[in-house]
Amino acid sequence: MMQAATRTRRAHVFRVAASSPSDVSGVEAMFSAGLKPENVVAILGKTEGNGCVNDFTRGFATASFEALFARHGVEGVSLVMSGGTEGALSPHWTVFARESLIDDAADAGGPALAIGTSRTFHLPFHHLGRREQALMVAEGVITAMADAGIDDPADVHFVQIKCPFLTLARIGEADSTGHAVATRETLKSMGLSRGASALGVALALGEVDAATITDDVIGSRHDLFSSRASASAGVELTDHEIIVFGMSRAWNGPLAIDHAVMASAIDTASVHNARARLPERATIAAVLAKAEPDPSGMVGGRRHTMLDDSDIAGTRHARAFVGGVLAGVFGMTDLYVSGGAEHQVPPGGGPVAIIVEKER
Amino acid sequence: MMQAATRTRRAHVFRVAASSPSDVSGVEAMFSAGLKPENVVAILGKTEGNGCVNDFTRGFATASFEALFARHGVEGVSLVMSGGTEGALSPHWTVFARESLIDDAADAGGPALAIGTSRTFHLPFHHLGRREQALMVAEGVITAMADAGIDDPADVHFVQIKCPFLTLARIGEADSTGHAVATRETLKSMGLSRGASALGVALALGEVDAATITDDVIGSRHDLFSSRASASAGVELTDHEIIVFGMSRAWNGPLAIDHAVMASAIDTASVHNARARLPERATIAAVLAKAEPDPSGMVGGRRHTMLDDSDIAGTRHARAFVGGVLAGVFGMTDLYVSGGAEHQVPPGGGPVAIIVEKER
Amino acid sequence: MMQAATRTRRAHVFRVAASSPSDVSGVEAMFSAGLKPENVVAILGKTEGNGCVNDFTRGFATASFEALFARHGVEGVSLVMSGGTEGALSPHWTVFARESLIDDAADAGGPALAIGTSRTFHLPFHHLGRREQALMVAEGVITAMADAGIDDPADVHFVQIKCPFLTLARIGEADSTGHAVATRETLKSMGLSRGASALGVALALGEVDAATITDDVIGSRHDLFSSRASASAGVELTDHEIIVFGMSRAWNGPLAIDHAVMASAIDTASVHNARARLPERATIAAVLAKAEPDPSGMVGGRRHTMLDDSDIAGTRHARAFVGGVLAGVFGMTDLYVSGGAEHQVPPGGGPVAIIVEKER
Amino acid sequence: MMQAATRTRRAHVFRVAASSPSDVSGVEAMFSAGLKPENVVAILGKTEGNGCVNDFTRGFATASFEALFARHGVEGVSLVMSGGTEGALSPHWTVFARESLIDDAADAGGPALAIGTSRTFHLPFHHLGRREQALMVAEGVITAMADAGIDDPADVHFVQIKCPFLTLARIGEADSTGHAVATRETLKSMGLSRGASALGVALALGEVDAATITDDVIGSRHDLFSSRASASAGVELTDHEIIVFGMSRAWNGPLAIDHAVMASAIDTASVHNARARLPERATIAAVLAKAEPDPSGMVGGRRHTMLDDSDIAGTRHARAFVGGVLAGVFGMTDLYVSGGAEHQVPPGGGPVAIIVEKER
Repeated sequence: MMQAATRTRRAHVFRVAASSPSDVSGVEAMFSAGLKPENVVAILGKTEGNGCVNDFTRGFATASFEALFARHGVEGVSLVMSGGTEGALSPHWTVFARESLIDDAADAGGPALAIGTSRTFHLPFHHLGRREQALMVAEGVITAMADAGIDDPADVHFVQIKCPFLTLARIGEADSTGHAVATRETLKSMGLSRGASALGVALALGEVDAATITDDVIGSRHDLFSSRASASAGVELTDHEIIVFGMSRAWNGPLAIDHAVMASAIDTASVHNARARLPERATIAAVLAKAEPDPSGMVGGRRHTMLDDSDIAGTRHARAFVGGVLAGVFGMTDLYVSGGAEHQVPPGGGPVAIIVEKER
Repeated sequence: MMQAATRTRRAHVFRVAASSPSDVSGVEAMFSAGLKPENVVAILGKTEGNGCVNDFTRGFATASFEALFARHGVEGVSLVMSGGTEGALSPHWTVFARESLIDDAADAGGPALAIGTSRTFHLPFHHLGRREQALMVAEGVITAMADAGIDDPADVHFVQIKCPFLTLARIGEADSTGHAVATRETLKSMGLSRGASALGVALALGEVDAATITDDVIGSRHDLFSSRASASAGVELTDHEIIVFGMSRAWNGPLAIDHAVMASAIDTASVHNARARLPERATIAAVLAKAEPDPSGMVGGRRHTMLDDSDIAGTRHARAFVGGVLAGVFGMTDLYVSGGAEHQVPPGGGPVAIIVEKER
Repeated sequence: MMQAATRTRRAHVFRVAASSPSDVSGVEAMFSAGLKPENVVAILGKTEGNGCVNDFTRGFATASFEALFARHGVEGVSLVMSGGTEGALSPHWTVFARESLIDDAADAGGPALAIGTSRTFHLPFHHLGRREQALMVAEGVITAMADAGIDDPADVHFVQIKCPFLTLARIGEADSTGHAVATRETLKSMGLSRGASALGVALALGEVDAATITDDVIGSRHDLFSSRASASAGVELTDHEIIVFGMSRAWNGPLAIDHAVMASAIDTASVHNARARLPERATIAAVLAKAEPDPSGMVGGRRHTMLDDSDIAGTRHARAFVGGVLAGVFGMTDLYVSGGAEHQVPPGGGPVAIIVEKER
Repeated sequence: MMQAATRTRRAHVFRVAASSPSDVSGVEAMFSAGLKPENVVAILGKTEGNGCVNDFTRGFATASFEALFARHGVEGVSLVMSGGTEGALSPHWTVFARESLIDDAADAGGPALAIGTSRTFHLPFHHLGRREQALMVAEGVITAMADAGIDDPADVHFVQIKCPFLTLARIGEADSTGHAVATRETLKSMGLSRGASALGVALALGEVDAATITDDVIGSRHDLFSSRASASAGVELTDHEIIVFGMSRAWNGPLAIDHAVMASAIDTASVHNARARLPERATIAAVLAKAEPDPSGMVGGRRHTMLDDSDIAGTRHARAFVGGVLAGVFGMTDLYVSGGAEHQVPPGGGPVAIIVEKER
């Protein structure tokens, strides 16, 4: 007797080369080849800018993808662009898609990579960079976990957040309601928003407890962090876009994810261990990592000069170097190595999420 | 009955941290602790400059060591400074010393790391950058091999050359003797001198045959190279300082050397293999490597952006990245990773010499 | 008795602030305020990139303006983006428009700023970077002069050329017709195309004679140049867009143009003299200048370090410094100071076109 | 009848080209030509580093001059090295010397450039960066004015201070005496020391009153500043070296000094006015200026990008640009344009001291 067909979901991950920040032709070709644009959940891009303040390659890439998706009548894809392909890191897009399937039981044996999304409510601007934002994001992460069919925070391996920041207009709006904003400096508000968002992830995943997250720890207590959060601030939204990547039995297919927390920039052992927890007969589908100069000025007990270099930003040094460390481990250069940030990186170390595709 | 004592030689290698380009205090402390300044053969330094044209950290370090050795009445130590500690590479000095010992037979069982030196005759300036220079260097390498007690070129793993270059005065001197120089551009003469020197090493080690080395291949035929040469041009000499590192039965002690030729910036397999050819129970004494952006614009089949970056020199990207690759392999950041150069690096790859110290 | 009305033309020049490379809102606001998009001839932009190889701010600005003009149903506006707002140079767009008027005689008294345009035929790719290209451009300049109503080359003060370059596909196309291209390196073809175009301007304006322009002088004879040419290479065209700025009696209105050739980066006397040749009671409408590091390594007999700096490109130094020199003279920072180039700058000096608007 | 000879003093100022940060040969040549090394009071150098944290050209230059003066048996010359010769600024040394003369009355008609020096007592380390340091420096400035024979603060046009900063050892020393230091961050202590020193100058010159200078304004109240102070922190001293430049009737000779305060980076009018207050028939002996990016993000009402550029430090942009502005005014590029700093620059503007030598 045949088993009944089962409803399941399946994620897809594609790394696509980019010849420039506006080169979306590789993704367009995948659409022509059958990938449904409406199935795309998110695109994480590495673009060849400096990854710092005046990096316009991110905006150029975002505008190029918005135009592409608009041509296909699709809205709402999360576009997360990380500047900086230092060293031999290779500019590329990682496309995340998902689909619902009526699968036969034989294939249905998860767990597999699960991708869940959510959007929060509009963030009152005087909550930005404060405990309220962290709580709002934590709730959003829990919603996205539910969307992904993930119950256990231990099954979550990477959380991408896109969060708002303050503009002069938004500060004025808060002022007019009689509420004080956390900062009147718009640049600083980006950091506070990312930090509060990361602490929201930490809260949802049980890395930090709720009582600890007070307004004053945001942006100052560097020992509080989520090792699975990746936050970026964007002017185009006033709520939060949240994408959770983890493992779930409700999902199917050859993809699996795990993550390591490197204790230092040269801690390859943790990465090898994480890889070893994943199926051996599998190819690398994506590596998502964060890198920052060790604030102690030392790596492995020896001085580094990243933070004293007035010619090259420390984050650029860090991406180049950690990019090399990871490229040596994985044998490939189209890695998503992003500058870490507020409450997203253990001091001196960095998280590395690994997605593999099992051989059939 | 006791065995007769045997005359033997022993090399010493020390990595010493540098807190700045002029910080020679660590080496001075070793002198106080017993290292004889006159036993020092060479110091290879990594200094925290940009490693390019306007890197004055090299000159500052050289001047600082010259003053130190002058205070100890020692002259003629080969001082080779390589700028650029990108990524988490750590500024440091590698001190190479050697001594003659009357050793008891039990310890005398080489082979061990051997260090030989030589200086060539004064180079007629119109020979610079030409076949004659390569032949002169080849002869010098053979002399240094003899000094090291190495017969077989296969036992040579790293050759450091310091070579002269043309100044306006030297061009004038050549002119006055009626001989045409290879180039009238002083900057270009540095590259030609390094290239001819590297081809001299290649000739001595049997990597290139003598007939191939004509004037016109110097600086143009990139498929001709020595994978064991490291050349730097200095204004302070008109001959060549040559240091050969290899293995010899005439030497003793716990140090051993081997080398890999990485086929690409992410070819860690070759490095692991070279390490595996050395004793397992041993610590790393020094790693000497060269790195350059792959001229094809690709690493492992994927585009890199090192050569298109007008903000950061490609050699800086390459040192940061290959520094990361090797630091991941060796678990340390005080590696001598130097910008490769003319006829010293296989296109897209790079040599890595590894010196280990066996545990007792 | 009233005089008969006269048909005349009038140019308009607007400097518009840009808050980012994609900020076209200032120009859009002018459309709302009455400027007809179809009257716009060209936009010369200064964008805040590095002005070198990996400057994507130019492409981002171009894409943003193309989208703007497409929304208004206008095509064919010449968009010339120059990266690099070093020092206190201010990112901005200079909008050039023109219109035909039936003017009353009182106002009709030119001469005034005249703007003429032309496009050449498609350039056979094996002509690129060769004498044929220069001749084609020279003809195009003469056509644009006629369009502007300028007879005398002495009345031309600035010529902007947009020229094609070679891609692999174009080289293949030339190969397939059995014609050899001037270079197979695409990057080099950009320089050759700009150089040949500039020599075409020089020919049209009588700065160089036709016999001198042979294939081999293009890219090598730096003493041959036009002091009024500004060329940029773009992949999007296979012909040439030419815009001539000068003075003509057929034009009307308060605008006037003249130009200086600075003999060195600090030659303010020539600029003051050019300004003095224009009406005194007038405000500055636009300053269009070119700057390059003096190849002699000296300015005013003293060494500069622009060409030895491996951290900052020499053209960036030059724009910052000449930007300062000219901002000091004109008292404003939204100047179009562009990196000079092949056959467009006298060695060590640079052209400066000044457009003023007479007070009424 | 002959008039009686008069005892007077005379200052000398020489600008000497430097071919590299260690090139002291030009000054050595002046010693050979008759300049007495013991008459040299100070050398202000512009070296070709980045002028930021990892600029070792300053230390290299200082070490090179120390060795030179040691060879001549001279100690205590104030060596002040400012990194950064962006744009076409030319690396050079400005040598300040003074001598006592028995002059005949005809020549004795001052006033002329006067140079006075002083050293303060040792600064207790817990006073560093606090009101006490400012008071100590103010007293030292008054002493140096007396040394220069200057009574009226209005006659002082430039004050160079070399001040100490905190090291870990010095913090420990303060700790051991039970006194809290102003900061435990050594880098921050440099800024506090420069700031307190500059406010000391402001106090001595009547630019700020004593009651205003409390601990908490140091480093925070940017509206408090001296427009004639130039402070640099050095690890080699624990007191302060102070050099006052001004006009005095007790001095003689062809040199004269005045200064301008530029209201913005393009305020050339103030510079022309200061120049006009000096003798017309005179050549420029030295220009000493400070430059910083306008913190408002605007110059002359238009946006600049210096503070958003993550590739080039804002101070480098500012030196290049203001260097251009001043080189355009003075027609020379060996100007001492130094990055301004704490309490030394009016926000958005900068001081410019001009020393001229009257024609005879």
